[in-house]
Amino acid sequence: MEKKLIGSCIFGQSGGPTAVINASAYGVIRAALDAPEITRVYGAAHGIVGVLKDQLYVMDEEDPKELELLLHTPSSELGSCRYKMADPETDDTDYKKILEIFKKYNVRYFFYNGGNDSMDTCNKISRYMESVGYECRVMGVPKTIDNDLFGTDHCPGFASAAKYIATSCMEINKDARVYDNGMITVVEIMGRHAGWLAASAALASYFGSGPDLIYLPENDFDMDQFFADIDRIYKASGKVLVAVSEGIHYADGSFVSEAKTSATDGFGHAQLGGLASMLANLIKARTGAKVRGIELSLLQRCAAHLASATDVNEACAAGKKAVEAAVAGDTGHMVAFKRVEKNGKYACELELLPLSSVANYEKKIPLEWINDEHNGLKQEFIDYVLPLIQGEPELPLEHSLPRYARLKKILAK
Amino acid sequence: MEKKLIGSCIFGQSGGPTAVINASAYGVIRAALDAPEITRVYGAAHGIVGVLKDQLYVMDEEDPKELELLLHTPSSELGSCRYKMADPETDDTDYKKILEIFKKYNVRYFFYNGGNDSMDTCNKISRYMESVGYECRVMGVPKTIDNDLFGTDHCPGFASAAKYIATSCMEINKDARVYDNGMITVVEIMGRHAGWLAASAALASYFGSGPDLIYLPENDFDMDQFFADIDRIYKASGKVLVAVSEGIHYADGSFVSEAKTSATDGFGHAQLGGLASMLANLIKARTGAKVRGIELSLLQRCAAHLASATDVNEACAAGKKAVEAAVAGDTGHMVAFKRVEKNGKYACELELLPLSSVANYEKKIPLEWINDEHNGLKQEFIDYVLPLIQGEPELPLEHSLPRYARLKKILAK
Repeated sequence: MEKKLIGSCIFGQSGGPTAVINASAYGVIRAALDAPEITRVYGAAHGIVGVLKDQLYVMDEEDPKELELLLHTPSSELGSCRYKMADPETDDTDYKKILEIFKKYNVRYFFYNGGNDSMDTCNKISRYMESVGYECRVMGVPKTIDNDLFGTDHCPGFASAAKYIATSCMEINKDARVYDNGMITVVEIMGRHAGWLAASAALASYFGSGPDLIYLPENDFDMDQFFADIDRIYKASGKVLVAVSEGIHYADGSFVSEAKTSATDGFGHAQLGGLASMLANLIKARTGAKVRGIELSLLQRCAAHLASATDVNEACAAGKKAVEAAVAGDTGHMVAFKRVEKNGKYACELELLPLSSVANYEKKIPLEWINDEHNGLKQEFIDYVLPLIQGEPELPLEHSLPRYARLKKILAK
Repeated sequence: MEKKLIGSCIFGQSGGPTAVINASAYGVIRAALDAPEITRVYGAAHGIVGVLKDQLYVMDEEDPKELELLLHTPSSELGSCRYKMADPETDDTDYKKILEIFKKYNVRYFFYNGGNDSMDTCNKISRYMESVGYECRVMGVPKTIDNDLFGTDHCPGFASAAKYIATSCMEINKDARVYDNGMITVVEIMGRHAGWLAASAALASYFGSGPDLIYLPENDFDMDQFFADIDRIYKASGKVLVAVSEGIHYADGSFVSEAKTSATDGFGHAQLGGLASMLANLIKARTGAKVRGIELSLLQRCAAHLASATDVNEACAAGKKAVEAAVAGDTGHMVAFKRVEKNGKYACELELLPLSSVANYEKKIPLEWINDEHNGLKQEFIDYVLPLIQGEPELPLEHSLPRYARLKKILAK
């Protein structure tokens, strides 16, 4: 039995926003407010950057009803960041500052919600605090629409994005086949290295009508084969709907979209985009067909109005679990999802994984779930993703428009 | 009292699809199937093109339950066209062919669902049939997300697109303000000559948070003023969300997006697109800020999952009214909406307008509803659009994904 640890907590959000990252925030904040061991609940403005800058919002001051609206408020309500921490062995400046802030507010619990890079941050902070003998329980809460976190069956945020992508592809498919002339449409979907999101467009094809062709970063992209695939379908039906992951790349590893931009984000990742229109232009030049490129852009990751209730509930439960586990004595872990079957139905159990085992590994789609032509998904993928998108959350509306949480965001002094 | 006219009917869909054009189709088809005077109900494949090609689907053969699903199925289920009919005085080839088809199937009722150009087609057919003494009642059913049809308070399809735009802008706004660095986002919204759709982004700003700036084709666009507006907000808050209509144009009438493409559609309209990324690049070059261009593209006109129940109901009622009026003796009219107040609440009455009075006129946003800076909307616009987006339709779902109508589409012999 671990001894009781009394003190305040900091919660932070990091990386790209999702439709349900605030549901995890609610899970953490509500459980922390309810835990007798946690004396004060701080929300870091813009993740770890807010800790470094001593910009902490006092969650205890918020209206509980507004906090509850976080369940259906997209994006990262406390603000996010893409800040890469140095290795503490190389440069411990940031860590010293964090320690100073932790001491100032008597922070004994640190909860961080994010993807691969954020779990790495989380892990480094955990190890540093241990190395300097400052007692603080550090827990990671998973999040990423990319669904590429290692060790967890799936990641909060992915399913809602997948549902948005599938629904939008069904709708686009209806629209893109309406005229009596030929039409080729290319939809660009997020996913730098893993194709989970673009693959989800296959749900539209399986349960209605959707893309004829789907290209993922799991396989090397071959432009000649791409053109041949399109030509074949265009000649047969005059209409082609193609879904491509933004991260499709040639055999040498270079992104197909790479020529379009040389900008990079804070982690040195290439900033992708503009791929749909680039491919549409190439197809147009080649076939003379009417073409249209559509980029789902930010819409796919912030569409709370099409969220999966399963995703919302699991995201919230993951946040709650992190707090409960930390209060019970756990540290240095990330909450993960384990898929189990109960009475032949999908169910999800929460477990804890060492942060060191998940940080910086990327989980991709198993190659055997992709068809032999590398332009579509097999039943195995549908079986994997379908249970995750189930259920429609009851969205709070005002004037038939979303009513999001309105937090006071009072800074700690 | 008009004499009873016994015969079959043809219904056709024309122009750009909307989220509710099939709700009008259902209104027409259901009422026509129920009318004792109408002996057979044909749906033209791809509008008037299907009539010219003798491609007519027999609606009597469809499963009534599948037909009812049309209420929530986006895009034009029977197929659409952008076919420009010649003036019958100049070239009556098409009209002779149509008359031949009408005689072949004993067509005595013709219902056409579309926008400005379609009402023109409708009007020409009506006049031609009268001139050759063939008794056929011709009725137009309005439709256009652009909301630019003359004589009607609003057009079916507009409100659902407006709701999608407002909701998406709320969501994008959440996402686009999440990081601790500066960010300028440009959202491109449909609307060639009238700014009703882009203006609807103002709903997000009024009832939550949305674009800081909105530019419409109703006013001449001034690039210097545009940059100055953005600079001012960017300097104050570091975040700017801009909504632009695809049809914004300079004082000389040339589209801002014009340099991007020289393609035109069947009616000789310039094909717009790529404006958001063009403006984003210009802003980036000028400010050095992180920028993102987002084009709502087809998504905004086919998003049945975010339809307005008011819009769905009115679209269906308009189709039904066209049939009832024609059976009662009317011809040469378009169904129009008249806004009335009942007990201080919005209500909508149906009326009939001569086709000749609506064809080829475009209704724009009253200039006095736009702010003096020409970058936002006044309360009058909100009061106009808000009642139209109310109500959430009960969407039929299967596996938490839309379940659209699956018609057999059996061709008449």
